[in-house]
Amino acid sequence: MNKTIRVTVWNEFLHEKQNPEIAKIYPEGIHGAIAKYLGSKPEFKVKTATLEMPEHGLTDEVLNNTDVLIWWGHMAHDRVSDAVVDKIYRRITDGGMGLIVLHSGHYSKIFRRLMGTSCGLRWREAGEKERLWVVSPGHPITAGLSEYFEIEHTEMYGEYFDIPTPDQLVFISWFQGGEVFRSGCCFHRGRGKIFYFRPGHESFPIFHHPIVLKVIENAARWAAPVDGPRPPTIVGAPNVKPLEKLQ
Amino acid sequence: MNKTIRVTVWNEFLHEKQNPEIAKIYPEGIHGAIAKYLGSKPEFKVKTATLEMPEHGLTDEVLNNTDVLIWWGHMAHDRVSDAVVDKIYRRITDGGMGLIVLHSGHYSKIFRRLMGTSCGLRWREAGEKERLWVVSPGHPITAGLSEYFEIEHTEMYGEYFDIPTPDQLVFISWFQGGEVFRSGCCFHRGRGKIFYFRPGHESFPIFHHPIVLKVIENAARWAAPVDGPRPPTIVGAPNVKPLEKLQ
Amino acid sequence: MNKTIRVTVWNEFLHEKQNPEIAKIYPEGIHGAIAKYLGSKPEFKVKTATLEMPEHGLTDEVLNNTDVLIWWGHMAHDRVSDAVVDKIYRRITDGGMGLIVLHSGHYSKIFRRLMGTSCGLRWREAGEKERLWVVSPGHPITAGLSEYFEIEHTEMYGEYFDIPTPDQLVFISWFQGGEVFRSGCCFHRGRGKIFYFRPGHESFPIFHHPIVLKVIENAARWAAPVDGPRPPTIVGAPNVKPLEKLQ
Amino acid sequence: MNKTIRVTVWNEFLHEKQNPEIAKIYPEGIHGAIAKYLGSKPEFKVKTATLEMPEHGLTDEVLNNTDVLIWWGHMAHDRVSDAVVDKIYRRITDGGMGLIVLHSGHYSKIFRRLMGTSCGLRWREAGEKERLWVVSPGHPITAGLSEYFEIEHTEMYGEYFDIPTPDQLVFISWFQGGEVFRSGCCFHRGRGKIFYFRPGHESFPIFHHPIVLKVIENAARWAAPVDGPRPPTIVGAPNVKPLEKLQ
Repeated sequence: MNKTIRVTVWNEFLHEKQNPEIAKIYPEGIHGAIAKYLGSKPEFKVKTATLEMPEHGLTDEVLNNTDVLIWWGHMAHDRVSDAVVDKIYRRITDGGMGLIVLHSGHYSKIFRRLMGTSCGLRWREAGEKERLWVVSPGHPITAGLSEYFEIEHTEMYGEYFDIPTPDQLVFISWFQGGEVFRSGCCFHRGRGKIFYFRPGHESFPIFHHPIVLKVIENAARWAAPVDGPRPPTIVGAPNVKPLEKLQ
Repeated sequence: MNKTIRVTVWNEFLHEKQNPEIAKIYPEGIHGAIAKYLGSKPEFKVKTATLEMPEHGLTDEVLNNTDVLIWWGHMAHDRVSDAVVDKIYRRITDGGMGLIVLHSGHYSKIFRRLMGTSCGLRWREAGEKERLWVVSPGHPITAGLSEYFEIEHTEMYGEYFDIPTPDQLVFISWFQGGEVFRSGCCFHRGRGKIFYFRPGHESFPIFHHPIVLKVIENAARWAAPVDGPRPPTIVGAPNVKPLEKLQ
Repeated sequence: MNKTIRVTVWNEFLHEKQNPEIAKIYPEGIHGAIAKYLGSKPEFKVKTATLEMPEHGLTDEVLNNTDVLIWWGHMAHDRVSDAVVDKIYRRITDGGMGLIVLHSGHYSKIFRRLMGTSCGLRWREAGEKERLWVVSPGHPITAGLSEYFEIEHTEMYGEYFDIPTPDQLVFISWFQGGEVFRSGCCFHRGRGKIFYFRPGHESFPIFHHPIVLKVIENAARWAAPVDGPRPPTIVGAPNVKPLEKLQ
Repeated sequence: MNKTIRVTVWNEFLHEKQNPEIAKIYPEGIHGAIAKYLGSKPEFKVKTATLEMPEHGLTDEVLNNTDVLIWWGHMAHDRVSDAVVDKIYRRITDGGMGLIVLHSGHYSKIFRRLMGTSCGLRWREAGEKERLWVVSPGHPITAGLSEYFEIEHTEMYGEYFDIPTPDQLVFISWFQGGEVFRSGCCFHRGRGKIFYFRPGHESFPIFHHPIVLKVIENAARWAAPVDGPRPPTIVGAPNVKPLEKLQ
């Protein structure tokens, strides 16, 4: 229960290098802002990794020592190597690593592969208001929250969000411009847990919002692996002997 | 995370008083066997309560200080007072108390009320073999388990089990006599989490089986409440002012 | 496939008698408006029934010849007899009758009993705009619809809506005043299908809205029973012989 | 409701050509056996297609005129062209075509892509008995069935079956050798409906079993598309204007 959760925060980290306005909001990168927050909690041991590091910073050594991977990407999904995506995928489904996909990560290779759908959605960048309503009040991801919380200025994501039905739906967003969105979605794939969380545009200080950070913290706890069964059927299709006598 | 989980183990406690064979298996009652096991884990603080105690041992004081209620009943479901059932119900849906319903508790007043269905099933008492297969390998209730576990001699419960579709299905049982059963079922109702776990007949030493006890331990951790939002809509239908200006 | 679907539209039918403004909107009652629309489709054979009829118009004869029951109630839920509710309940879970619950029917005895939850929600009567987004585009209840539809003036219902997680979530509503709502929810209980559909306040002409009526029509087709298995476990707990030889 | 459902039955069609024992069971191929049965029902218009036909028999012309595609494959999943799989995929998620995946089709490219998981399972070829229990008695796929049905001699598939949690679980299988399996699983992806149905090994006359055929017939009706909304977000991520005035 009380053991350390090893989190790796992955960020594309291009916007912050290319755009001074964004660098002003996230001087240490989006990954830096999230890592700083989580690192202040004693139960987390936090690393970061970014696209332009060798192997995107996700070596076997790093992945094998990660309990929960947090993912932010936007403009360079295609530059993520398929070999690294394969390794992340297996580490989730076979190894039980948790995955938290943030905002524009909906279009990342790893999320689309896990979902099996296009993960498309509507969007608009107008700095409008979002209100996230809790629809699973007993879920651990809502710990410490009230019935809803607000983000004053954000990018809009609207339905239809092309995902499989979530195993649990935690938040539904209201947008000023007239849309709704399933903003907090839990999925189980193999031994791994996945949480998609909508907020997080690079041009707004979303990852300085205390409730957004609190949700990410809760999600990291929820997504951390348990030492459960490791069925060989996740990586193959074993031919097995009968467990009972066949007459 | 690491805080104490306060568990109350409730048992009808009639079979053990009336039948010496059963008393031999459970000299301290079914509740005693479960409480002894959980009590040996430092994170649990365990109490017991039984049918023939005043208010069935479930006073306001007890309920308000219970994080997870474990329920075993069989021959006297009707003798449980409706007033106590009402209080348990509200403590679950509004207060977030977890509920673990064991075996013949499928027909208890509290479980039927929470499910909204008859909770009927087929059964047979022939001491046959059961094998429980894990179908949610990443679920915290399966922590420490292998792909399946066996109970050598048990009562059979078979489908169709008249429940709503579980929010997560954790175990499916195989029985020697030809039936299957959804044996580990998670439900969320209001702020509360509910786990139905099939094993547990009074005339077999099921609650001395190490994996059965491990599952109950895992389920108690899973079902413990989080300090999440407490929507007033769980107990009423508030008339509310608009959050946004209506043109 | 092509057989007639026998629909009974039930309405409390008090508002229309007591309030001339409402009678102007629904001169033949809410039930009359819905029955007229469905009756114009050749595959439906439609009856109506109301609270103040003997047995609320829901005699054994009527219930046993109803494939889908549509339910509208608001101010007199408590006046519906428990004996009639029992019969409706059994006809759904054991007989496979479909149930479509409209708007304020969320608080009806039959819906609350089937859900096992309080079915509470937030509300506001301000004549604001609602936009219903389709989140299950392949679902038969969305046949003929576009991505969303609007109701110009309506009562607001907001989350948290205290229901079990729907088996399928079909619509999510956006409200002008800042709330969201799970407005189209499918549930399966025993052999029966249940659809909760949010729109429908008595003081707005909701049941003259062509898309609202189209959704009710689609839902009646979806909810109609199939001639499937009738497990005895829905009404009891049979003791059964083994299907296989026990060694 | 009563319109014709256009079904295309796809079969790898290699076993039947290569193995005289299998050819004896399926003289017209597995596709032929299924097509013959469905073709005898007036509401279906049935075609067949096989691996070694040009474009595997699944030209644009064929796919665009298919409401439900039935898929059987086993030894040559890798020989199915990725371009054809892409077209099938888009026809399902964007076009709403239904897909019924039979038995060893669990490892087909199209099923694995739609699931996003490995779709692995345990198996054994010992000609043992299977009993399929209905766990969704009101589901249209169970029309005309009893509480369970049996297959006297079959290949075994056992859990853990590495799939996402089905949107509806219809059948659970019991096997003589001690395993269980989620044998009838419904999924929704985009606008399309998918049904995985376990029975069907090439060396047993499974596709001559009247209840197996009845289930396929029911599934074809269930999976047929409705003329519902076609969200552009299934194929892209449109940038949209606000529907409401932003202050």
